[in-house]
Amino acid sequence: MSDERIVILAHEKFPDRAKTALGVMRYGDQDLRAVLDRDRAGDRVRDHVPDLADAPIVESFADAYAAADGEVDALYIGIAPIGGGFDESWRGDVRAAIEAGCDVVSGLHYFLNEDAELAALADEHGVDLVDVREPDDDLTVATGASGDVDADVVLTVGTDCSVGKMTASLEIVAAARERGIDAAFVPTGQTGIMIAGWGNPIDRVVSDFTAGAVEDMLVEIGDNHDLLVVEGQGSIIHPAYSAVTCGILHGSMADGLVLCHAAGREVVHGYESFSLPPVSEYLDLYEGLANPVHETSVVAGALNTKDVADDAAATEAVAAFADDAGVPAADPVRDGADRIVDGIVAAGLGEDA
Amino acid sequence: MSDERIVILAHEKFPDRAKTALGVMRYGDQDLRAVLDRDRAGDRVRDHVPDLADAPIVESFADAYAAADGEVDALYIGIAPIGGGFDESWRGDVRAAIEAGCDVVSGLHYFLNEDAELAALADEHGVDLVDVREPDDDLTVATGASGDVDADVVLTVGTDCSVGKMTASLEIVAAARERGIDAAFVPTGQTGIMIAGWGNPIDRVVSDFTAGAVEDMLVEIGDNHDLLVVEGQGSIIHPAYSAVTCGILHGSMADGLVLCHAAGREVVHGYESFSLPPVSEYLDLYEGLANPVHETSVVAGALNTKDVADDAAATEAVAAFADDAGVPAADPVRDGADRIVDGIVAAGLGEDA
Repeated sequence: MSDERIVILAHEKFPDRAKTALGVMRYGDQDLRAVLDRDRAGDRVRDHVPDLADAPIVESFADAYAAADGEVDALYIGIAPIGGGFDESWRGDVRAAIEAGCDVVSGLHYFLNEDAELAALADEHGVDLVDVREPDDDLTVATGASGDVDADVVLTVGTDCSVGKMTASLEIVAAARERGIDAAFVPTGQTGIMIAGWGNPIDRVVSDFTAGAVEDMLVEIGDNHDLLVVEGQGSIIHPAYSAVTCGILHGSMADGLVLCHAAGREVVHGYESFSLPPVSEYLDLYEGLANPVHETSVVAGALNTKDVADDAAATEAVAAFADDAGVPAADPVRDGADRIVDGIVAAGLGEDA
Repeated sequence: MSDERIVILAHEKFPDRAKTALGVMRYGDQDLRAVLDRDRAGDRVRDHVPDLADAPIVESFADAYAAADGEVDALYIGIAPIGGGFDESWRGDVRAAIEAGCDVVSGLHYFLNEDAELAALADEHGVDLVDVREPDDDLTVATGASGDVDADVVLTVGTDCSVGKMTASLEIVAAARERGIDAAFVPTGQTGIMIAGWGNPIDRVVSDFTAGAVEDMLVEIGDNHDLLVVEGQGSIIHPAYSAVTCGILHGSMADGLVLCHAAGREVVHGYESFSLPPVSEYLDLYEGLANPVHETSVVAGALNTKDVADDAAATEAVAAFADDAGVPAADPVRDGADRIVDGIVAAGLGEDA
């Protein structure tokens, strides 16, 4: 939530194995007061990640609360063990946060609201346990209302899972705002939801409501901005996750698509017997599938070059990708998203309605 | 379930407003002992629907049980009020069935298992309350295993919702069996599940598990048959339901597709501001989207001509549809599915492995 004063729990994992924590710190509007990591207590954030806003790293919630003079609104769980369980070594900190009147925000598979002790304690202290993976229970089927919002809608779509769609979306919003465009991020996954402080976890909703859960978000904020950037999920030809991708594509009724790819990726991540088709085929697939519902086209590309050796090779890879896709492209992490926003603006999107 | 001795509840609605009852009676392998309809007690099924197996229509479960000499395994709820609620006027019959040791099978949104009285009574009498809309809780993401089953897989895909995909699937299975092909129906919706006596309600599963819930069924029976016919849902360009369609398309890894259409349909049912593209475009969309995961093509067409005035006009409409799609086609209700099976067999599908 904007300006929420937060403490992030990242015990024994900050910074390299604390992806959620880093995502919230880099892209969230929250006001970070401290990081909990018992292995690095006494250090500061800038000792490990120089380009993020600084804050102390402390051992426990009690220390964080003291360091912040009690000015804390929420504790965020910024790490996830394999399997998404709750680590019992965190219980004391979570309990202390609740007792101090703080909400607790978690993207774990384990729902804090289903933990009898924590739920009772939260109730007693009048605070919220926010399980961001748990969908609202009033979601329903799409009506087609996404097409009626005032904002232009851009959706990041991928050649695969794990190619950087969330990061690209957030960098596009940041670069658009730099240009004075009133842009907002629409999250669809748990890290995005923790960063944004709201949103529906699309991969957890009832399959019939996939498009409806996206529409629900666009309708909620679509008249308050000029550009919405929807975080895509999966890929339209993913053997397991394409349903989610397709529901987001039609539910968002995007006016423009940003195609995201990871340099060098040739097979589906985790499903290596399935090859990725050429980039040009993705353009046909996404546009062909979207158009009968809402006219759109790929207006820019985002290439993740994290596995490319050096800047020169990355620049070359981005140029080749832009050429294949026939649109402006950039690596939003290495280069920033300015060239991507060029493509969005060139398509007439993001202007004052 | 095959040979299950059943009574179907259809109070005040048999036959015209009892679609689920008629579906089970027409296509199920169950052994029907009686229909409950208090408005038509004393009549027989053949008085109203001459081409179905005959059975008495009675006022209450007690009468049905007596008429069947106690040879009843299950009570099926064969009607659904708008909204899918439970009509309290049925409670006495459901209670009587449970007390007689019968399972109760329901496709209502209202889950019988969550009705405290009925759940306790079922527990006491050791019978099952089968809510077919409730997904198994051990579903998970697809692994790609559908591609490995021995059977050839055919999927019915649609130009829209409500064009007759379930009926086409069931008629294809019947026509294939007539030719000696060991074919089986794979249900994906609640009526199909009641007819088949098993299956996952794909539109109710967590969106991330859409493809996985289809795979789960194919793996369960795919090595026991030569041809599986998967009931499709929605359409790949439906503004609300395309996620379900896409998940079934990739989760089934179909070897052949049967394109289903309703004669005269020009806009999306219930979403009339969205036009249907030409038939040829659906071929490109379905094949283009499926092929990167599993090579397939449209091998036949099913045209629903229920709104066409007479047989001559229907024959003409079917011929025009076959021409547009470039494959053999039929109205499976008016003509039977023989020509559709011709297309399936011509593609080399359904033969002994």
